[in-house]
Amino acid sequence: MIWYENNKDDIAVSTRIRLARNLEGVVFPQFLKDKKEVSDKIKDAVLKSNSTLSGEFEEIELDKLGEGEKRQLYEAHLISPAMLEGSGRSVLLSRDRTMSCMIMEEDHLRIQVILPGFDVDSAYETADRVDDVIEESVNYAFDEEFGYLTSCPTNAGTGLRVSVMLHLPALEAAGKMAGIVSSASRLGIAVRGMYGEGSAAEGSLYQISNQVTVGLTEKELTDKVKNVVGQIIELEKQTRESIYKNNPAQLEDKLWRSYGIIKYARSISSSEAKSLISNVMLGRSLGILPKEGKSGIECIIKTEPATLSGKEQLSPEERDKKRAQFLREEL
Amino acid sequence: MIWYENNKDDIAVSTRIRLARNLEGVVFPQFLKDKKEVSDKIKDAVLKSNSTLSGEFEEIELDKLGEGEKRQLYEAHLISPAMLEGSGRSVLLSRDRTMSCMIMEEDHLRIQVILPGFDVDSAYETADRVDDVIEESVNYAFDEEFGYLTSCPTNAGTGLRVSVMLHLPALEAAGKMAGIVSSASRLGIAVRGMYGEGSAAEGSLYQISNQVTVGLTEKELTDKVKNVVGQIIELEKQTRESIYKNNPAQLEDKLWRSYGIIKYARSISSSEAKSLISNVMLGRSLGILPKEGKSGIECIIKTEPATLSGKEQLSPEERDKKRAQFLREEL
Repeated sequence: MIWYENNKDDIAVSTRIRLARNLEGVVFPQFLKDKKEVSDKIKDAVLKSNSTLSGEFEEIELDKLGEGEKRQLYEAHLISPAMLEGSGRSVLLSRDRTMSCMIMEEDHLRIQVILPGFDVDSAYETADRVDDVIEESVNYAFDEEFGYLTSCPTNAGTGLRVSVMLHLPALEAAGKMAGIVSSASRLGIAVRGMYGEGSAAEGSLYQISNQVTVGLTEKELTDKVKNVVGQIIELEKQTRESIYKNNPAQLEDKLWRSYGIIKYARSISSSEAKSLISNVMLGRSLGILPKEGKSGIECIIKTEPATLSGKEQLSPEERDKKRAQFLREEL
Repeated sequence: MIWYENNKDDIAVSTRIRLARNLEGVVFPQFLKDKKEVSDKIKDAVLKSNSTLSGEFEEIELDKLGEGEKRQLYEAHLISPAMLEGSGRSVLLSRDRTMSCMIMEEDHLRIQVILPGFDVDSAYETADRVDDVIEESVNYAFDEEFGYLTSCPTNAGTGLRVSVMLHLPALEAAGKMAGIVSSASRLGIAVRGMYGEGSAAEGSLYQISNQVTVGLTEKELTDKVKNVVGQIIELEKQTRESIYKNNPAQLEDKLWRSYGIIKYARSISSSEAKSLISNVMLGRSLGILPKEGKSGIECIIKTEPATLSGKEQLSPEERDKKRAQFLREEL
């Protein structure tokens, strides 16, 4: 089941593992003329192994998709923003949408595993299994000193990015995010918006991930992210409690109003939706609002422009109307 | 039944007639040392006539009421703001709260009739009947040239004030109120806030009344107010239709949001309540929102500070909470 379905509106929304890999003796994608041959080699390695894993994947050629379909994969965090542009890119997706192998992104291969909640170990184990299966058929570019070689040096070494999406409305409201971003940075941990680098933290959703991939083992990197994320979750919990205790009436009023607007508004923009849904997620987790309907993150993803539009061509006004209707009925 | 109960959320909310009268050969209240003797004379004239009208009135001595109880009468428009201050004032109220005789206001006697909707003729007829009954026992100060003499010359002549409360959200939103105020003024018609002179037009509620009481007959004055009010109602209707036609989605969204906030908010200030209720009144009259629960004006009056508090002593925060609860359950 895709990571955002049956989500629990917890502080930790999802955990993502990404491994960057390139084939030995082949130039990086931006310099590669014949992408097809290398792509096919990687696809075969995933789809035609003896492992049961192979049977779980299906191929999606991005060149054959319309703009809207590509954006739907991006909105669901199944492909990276880089995969939206250029040509010759494809993605192998597991049928449950947990695993994806992006081919000809910045590197020849990016293995991604995304799970609901805070579950770094399971996500890493799965990514590692996919990595092992592929390595049975191909030789990765690997240097004894630098580790895995990557197109951008910031991904070299382990090629591992551990990323946990956290819902931090209380820390945000208390003005504590700037301090957290700077403390985390000193520990080599980046705090970014919902869609990673350069994206805004709409809906108080933040991606916490390791900045550096080299110099530490995979175990050390996952432990470090787990440790920092655990501390931020604890801080968020304490801040929620103190905000609630400090003025329960004010917080209850604010959260119920967001609920009321969602239940009755006829037009809601994408940005307002995230802010309202964020309040509903907070209200549910504090036991203030009823726990019914779909999770907050599922509603956020399903009301993103491309996912919401589906196969239809909708104007922004039509989308705002459809978004309001979806939220009225589903949240 | 009191004017604001079973109101229909129409553009015309209520009609009020007020007659200013003073006794012949007695100085005006502000100079009167022994108010009791004159008050008793007027009370007897109302309460002890042979007319069936007398049986409908009961006496309320304002000096015996607490501040909150006096304000409740004021919030219900049953006494004027002047009656809240000073001493020696009393009011005779009909049991159905339609008629009130204010004694020792600015004048010795002010007869008021207030009815739901736009019904100047009925209100005037009733006030005239009360006036006739009283005149059987007392002699009014009356001058052949000036008409009825009053403490303030602006009330002399007929002593008649015709006042219709209108709900004008569309004209307000369209920025047309300033033009209406100035056109009406040229016709001798004042446009004021919900509680008359100097009060704000919260909830888009306006009092339309004659400025001048002298130089025209009672019939001419009531006709003039009826005429101007009729035109303003027509303008408001047209403006509502054109705003709705112009962007139905936007208006529906705005009105449903107000409905949603009322259905779920936990704390609502008096001023916000009027604005939200105004939107619900508009939504009901346009057939956008469901017509259930109490009328908008009843909810406005019943959530005014003193009326809402009843016999309790409530802090502003407690009132905002109780107001939100009342509106959630009753509107």
